[in-house]
Amino acid sequence: MPDTDVPGPMPASLPIALDAMGGDYAPEEIVAGAVQAVREHGIPIVLVGEPRPLMEALSLHDALAEIPIIRAEEALAMDEGALASLRRPRSSIAVACHLVRRGDACAVVSAGSTAGIVATGKLRLRSQNGVLRPALTVALPTRPTPTVLLDAGANAEVKPEMLVQFAHLGAAYAETVLEITDPGIGLLTIGSEPEKGNKLVKRAHELLSAAPGLRFAGNIEGHDLLTGAVDVIVTDGFTGNVALKTMEGSVRYAFTELRETINESRAARLGGLLQRKRLRELVQRLDPEVHGGAVLLGLNGTVVIAHGSSQAKGVSAACVLAARLARQGVVTRIGERLGAAHRPHRLW
Amino acid sequence: MPDTDVPGPMPASLPIALDAMGGDYAPEEIVAGAVQAVREHGIPIVLVGEPRPLMEALSLHDALAEIPIIRAEEALAMDEGALASLRRPRSSIAVACHLVRRGDACAVVSAGSTAGIVATGKLRLRSQNGVLRPALTVALPTRPTPTVLLDAGANAEVKPEMLVQFAHLGAAYAETVLEITDPGIGLLTIGSEPEKGNKLVKRAHELLSAAPGLRFAGNIEGHDLLTGAVDVIVTDGFTGNVALKTMEGSVRYAFTELRETINESRAARLGGLLQRKRLRELVQRLDPEVHGGAVLLGLNGTVVIAHGSSQAKGVSAACVLAARLARQGVVTRIGERLGAAHRPHRLW
Repeated sequence: MPDTDVPGPMPASLPIALDAMGGDYAPEEIVAGAVQAVREHGIPIVLVGEPRPLMEALSLHDALAEIPIIRAEEALAMDEGALASLRRPRSSIAVACHLVRRGDACAVVSAGSTAGIVATGKLRLRSQNGVLRPALTVALPTRPTPTVLLDAGANAEVKPEMLVQFAHLGAAYAETVLEITDPGIGLLTIGSEPEKGNKLVKRAHELLSAAPGLRFAGNIEGHDLLTGAVDVIVTDGFTGNVALKTMEGSVRYAFTELRETINESRAARLGGLLQRKRLRELVQRLDPEVHGGAVLLGLNGTVVIAHGSSQAKGVSAACVLAARLARQGVVTRIGERLGAAHRPHRLW
Repeated sequence: MPDTDVPGPMPASLPIALDAMGGDYAPEEIVAGAVQAVREHGIPIVLVGEPRPLMEALSLHDALAEIPIIRAEEALAMDEGALASLRRPRSSIAVACHLVRRGDACAVVSAGSTAGIVATGKLRLRSQNGVLRPALTVALPTRPTPTVLLDAGANAEVKPEMLVQFAHLGAAYAETVLEITDPGIGLLTIGSEPEKGNKLVKRAHELLSAAPGLRFAGNIEGHDLLTGAVDVIVTDGFTGNVALKTMEGSVRYAFTELRETINESRAARLGGLLQRKRLRELVQRLDPEVHGGAVLLGLNGTVVIAHGSSQAKGVSAACVLAARLARQGVVTRIGERLGAAHRPHRLW
């Protein structure tokens, strides 16, 4: 890695490769987020993108000496999807993935287009041994600990065996990032009895019930997503994405509906101010990509996808999450879990 | 119909057949709801169930002369599903369906188990000519007019052609009950571009784009469910059920989270009282089966499913909805739509 002062090969001190060109507010807010991550959280960062604008942005923060830049000639536009990402081997996200592959960075963070990041991540980092499909993973803001939901949209079409793997990926996340031991797994469907649902979940229910190394807690329904009934919720990427966006939309809806009441009286207005703030926070907490970001699990490297509209704070939070995932060894833990899951009986 | 004073054969004056034995608060609250429907809304009702407890309940309201009773020897328990319903031809819900079939009632209302009502309705009333699958239909509380969502859970597994039919069923509901002309149809999926989603929705998108008699407005996502972006949303019963329950759960979650803020100050408490009331109403409005009920569309007769925990008010609202559906001729409208949809090109 030329022209940089990236730390050595010790995993704990490897930097995050931050895609500086992805996101609605790139590169200014991405750079500002990098500065926050370095100064407030002590997380080493390398910025990946076009050097000139990045140097300008860094100099605004007087941070040219703190954060190295790795050149990438191209960038994926926010509306570019999977195909475009394949045609751009020198895009900032592709170069960021390459740094992780080469062992020069411990994780990738990007606020670029989800479809582009997923496609690039799969191509450049490849799936871990034995992983059928990487899955997009989010932490829902339940109490006392978050609930891990996957797949949130990487795979619109899955097979029952993949849902069993998603359970292991999600369990590895819960164990490493959330420090939950022996996490309970729930299968998202439309009734609590084992025979409820479509063919996919009925077969997945059988497989999960028999799977070693997983504490399967049975079926859960849509209204359980935010009750913390289980630690990990598995579903296909179609249902997961609809459910997640429905959550966001419903809280926004509640927020809009409440606005009317807030104007009804002075007391209500005063109370309302507090509550509007809280509701706005709620909306943000429900946004999977604002509170740290969505994680693409199952690759040979950690990839965190921050919301496209992330500003400095969101970018910094995504870097904190990525550092945590890398330091806690989520990739290794997934390997152990799937290795263990393979031995007793082969599912494919 | 013996021993009753049910009005004559004029469809407008045909009574609603109300399953008096289904629901958590049957028969007392069901009977109280019937009395409300008759007295406050002028809707003729026949109660179907065990005569003795029904007469007792009616006499409490001094309504023995107002509401006739049709005997049914059995009742489906709330935890009995589809199979049990087939084994009980004399259950209150089966007898209520029979009354509609014979032309002695214009619609069925029940607060019993959804699975039991769906199975009984399909068996006793049969699907309308050309209807592949009846669908559970709910009206979401959007502004200025509600948004119709189907299927909300009757069919966990569907084919693309069925989604086109659901669009017609939903359009008929929007036209007759909500008085929306030329309703816009949205397909629930995970991206706005036509190629986004799983195989089912991609094919459905093609079919909907080419379907005559439907104003197809394209794909919609989870966060559009409550924005009123379209008049009718079609989806499979698995996704629809998860989305609907997720909505309910998310609003409840917002409610719980806000409670904490409400206790923070006196002003917030005052404002909070108003807002808690409003949020509680919101939760109820989002409950598909409280605001009138879910409707099973596509059968030779109207079937409204009230929430299992319905009390008098909910039962009465379900009767009002059923009367409206019957009087506006939703069944006929569906027949016209599907007849018209068949002629230009056959989809199956």
